Amino acid sequence: MWAELLPIGRHPGSGGYRRYAWTGADAECRDWFREQAEARGLTYEADRNGNQWAWLGDPAAGDAVVTGSHLDSVPDGGAFDGPLGVVSSFAALDELRGRGARFTRPLAIVNFGDEEGARFGLACVGSRLTAGQLTAEQAHRLTDGDGVTLPRAMEAAGYDPEAIGPDPERLARIGAFVELHVEQGRALDLSGDQVGVASAIWPHGRWRFDFRGEANHAGTTRLADRRDPMLSYAQTVLAARREAELAGAVATFGKIAVEPNGVNAIPSLVRGWLDSRAADQETLDEVVGGVERAAREYATAHGIDLDVVRESFTPVVEFDHALRDELARILGKDTGLTVPVLGTGAGHDAGILSGSVPTAMLFVRNPTGVSHSPAEFAAEDDCVAGVRALADVLEGLACR
Amino acid sequence: MWAELLPIGRHPGSGGYRRYAWTGADAECRDWFREQAEARGLTYEADRNGNQWAWLGDPAAGDAVVTGSHLDSVPDGGAFDGPLGVVSSFAALDELRGRGARFTRPLAIVNFGDEEGARFGLACVGSRLTAGQLTAEQAHRLTDGDGVTLPRAMEAAGYDPEAIGPDPERLARIGAFVELHVEQGRALDLSGDQVGVASAIWPHGRWRFDFRGEANHAGTTRLADRRDPMLSYAQTVLAARREAELAGAVATFGKIAVEPNGVNAIPSLVRGWLDSRAADQETLDEVVGGVERAAREYATAHGIDLDVVRESFTPVVEFDHALRDELARILGKDTGLTVPVLGTGAGHDAGILSGSVPTAMLFVRNPTGVSHSPAEFAAEDDCVAGVRALADVLEGLACR
Repeated sequence: MWAELLPIGRHPGSGGYRRYAWTGADAECRDWFREQAEARGLTYEADRNGNQWAWLGDPAAGDAVVTGSHLDSVPDGGAFDGPLGVVSSFAALDELRGRGARFTRPLAIVNFGDEEGARFGLACVGSRLTAGQLTAEQAHRLTDGDGVTLPRAMEAAGYDPEAIGPDPERLARIGAFVELHVEQGRALDLSGDQVGVASAIWPHGRWRFDFRGEANHAGTTRLADRRDPMLSYAQTVLAARREAELAGAVATFGKIAVEPNGVNAIPSLVRGWLDSRAADQETLDEVVGGVERAAREYATAHGIDLDVVRESFTPVVEFDHALRDELARILGKDTGLTVPVLGTGAGHDAGILSGSVPTAMLFVRNPTGVSHSPAEFAAEDDCVAGVRALADVLEGLACR
Repeated sequence: MWAELLPIGRHPGSGGYRRYAWTGADAECRDWFREQAEARGLTYEADRNGNQWAWLGDPAAGDAVVTGSHLDSVPDGGAFDGPLGVVSSFAALDELRGRGARFTRPLAIVNFGDEEGARFGLACVGSRLTAGQLTAEQAHRLTDGDGVTLPRAMEAAGYDPEAIGPDPERLARIGAFVELHVEQGRALDLSGDQVGVASAIWPHGRWRFDFRGEANHAGTTRLADRRDPMLSYAQTVLAARREAELAGAVATFGKIAVEPNGVNAIPSLVRGWLDSRAADQETLDEVVGGVERAAREYATAHGIDLDVVRESFTPVVEFDHALRDELARILGKDTGLTVPVLGTGAGHDAGILSGSVPTAMLFVRNPTGVSHSPAEFAAEDDCVAGVRALADVLEGLACR
């Protein structure tokens, strides 16, 4: 199952994955999902927002236990972020059938569309639409780097963009959602555990900084006559690191677009994206406010116009306490061990759904903490432990 | 004549020109050149390296006076850099015919191919090949940002890439080359002159700085665990400005490529290009050496691997003193005024040819100094003065 998924969307140069929403690689991943569902005799459906579902039992019965994750990737992402959750869901179902488990609630496996937001700049589009956290009008305005709109991309992939929008009936059928994910930090590695339970997702957001100066010849324009936006950008990158260090948060400038981007041309525009996250809202405000204040000072000093736009934002997500404690109880039952409970800086579909249904997350150990990179890794032992833990959780929830 | 050329390759969004070598816009410029030549009864030819020539008199007679410039542009460049020299050449010929001038030497107008190097990263490809400063093997390895090689691009434009290479016979026919160009600084504006003569081109080069770190998740990777190459890049940008200020030189990071360039991914690679120029070699070495030393310190501190590659370099070019003095004499003859002689930080085909034939340059006033930008400008009065000066020079040289 894992082996069939591995080659899809893998870039031969980088070794990383380029599975972007509504591309050919995405379609291949979707075909794979449908085949896995049908091979197990599950009822397959794609919902109005392009999320894929595989049902065991009657979808309309209500109080369903749902598990799953996503199959798309960041640019040159790793093999585990997303796919591990989907593959583990199918594997956990296989495990439960092997145990002869009898289900008393409907079970569904889900693949949420466009989780990473690599193409249209907004993460968790599939789950946001379903939960009503993104309107159809807003989604229709999303555009990729080549100027292709989300509706046109969906159409090209054979989906109907006019159908998208909130799906409260679907959410009302779900009694609990559990997402398994590779850990994207080193907390489990440092504590020596294979599997952990999530407590909360840090508040996080994306801010676009547009530094506008004046394009000019790099060879003949005196330094004193320049309005070079690259200088203010560089100072702001360093300010972001300082602010994050002071606050115990994270702040990253990882994406940039420069115009005209010629070796012998002073740029007219340097556009940099800030990603920042912190354990609480107050700290995050402090960090981003500090970066913006510093950027404005630098820009003024160099005659640069600065616009700062918040492109997306997700407040802190506390996962359902009762479900979290239930998971910890189920997982600790046989071993008597305390399962570690940890926070995370990464956004997930589980975070989006947690506003509508009781939601929990399981993390699988990542020995290096590396994620969003071809070097992302989880040991086979730990993945197997993850499948067993997910099977235990599904059995505990759906076979009572 | 000017009006026909203006719309070609102009980007409706930026208002700047995108006339890159061997593209459709370049082909339209080339068609325009041929039409101008034929409309004046000149003998048109394209040489083995894709440079275009329009001859008055016998090309084989030798000791020709050649004038011209280039028609390609930097990304979102201005209307004047290059085209002003070609248009002024045709206009000067019209002016001389109007004066009833009788030519005693052959005259040619030239459009050198791929002067800006916007597509393949190397400037003055047409003149470098002709002068033997770039071999056919080296040129065959040039590749654009989309992976298209120079030979494939030439073929697509209907030229034969196997024919390219040094052209000493052609150079041997040239007695003098004069290139008129819009000034790319404010020296003439500050001195109050319409036209000036070039003394020298500063030594200049392009260096590529590859900062390699480790791609990782921007939300979950602790600051202490990061190897983020954007930080070393930012520090190096600021170091380049400091070094250039100290030395009275220029240094610019205007082009960047980031991998994977995702908002929520710490980059694995930040590639920045340094353009630097100074009045003499020693100063330039000092500036670039200082930037590289600083970059290595920053990289080491952040666990970043740094490679620095010199992608191109042009030593100082002193224009032919006799020809320069001859131009100053011709231009001062009627007015008794001293024509200003100035250095420039910009590279030109004239600089490449100066190693093979006596070469000179005329500059036309640029009221803002802005170049390589849609805002690049020269007043009509000054352009007319430039045409008159070029006509005087051609008359003085070719009608003796």
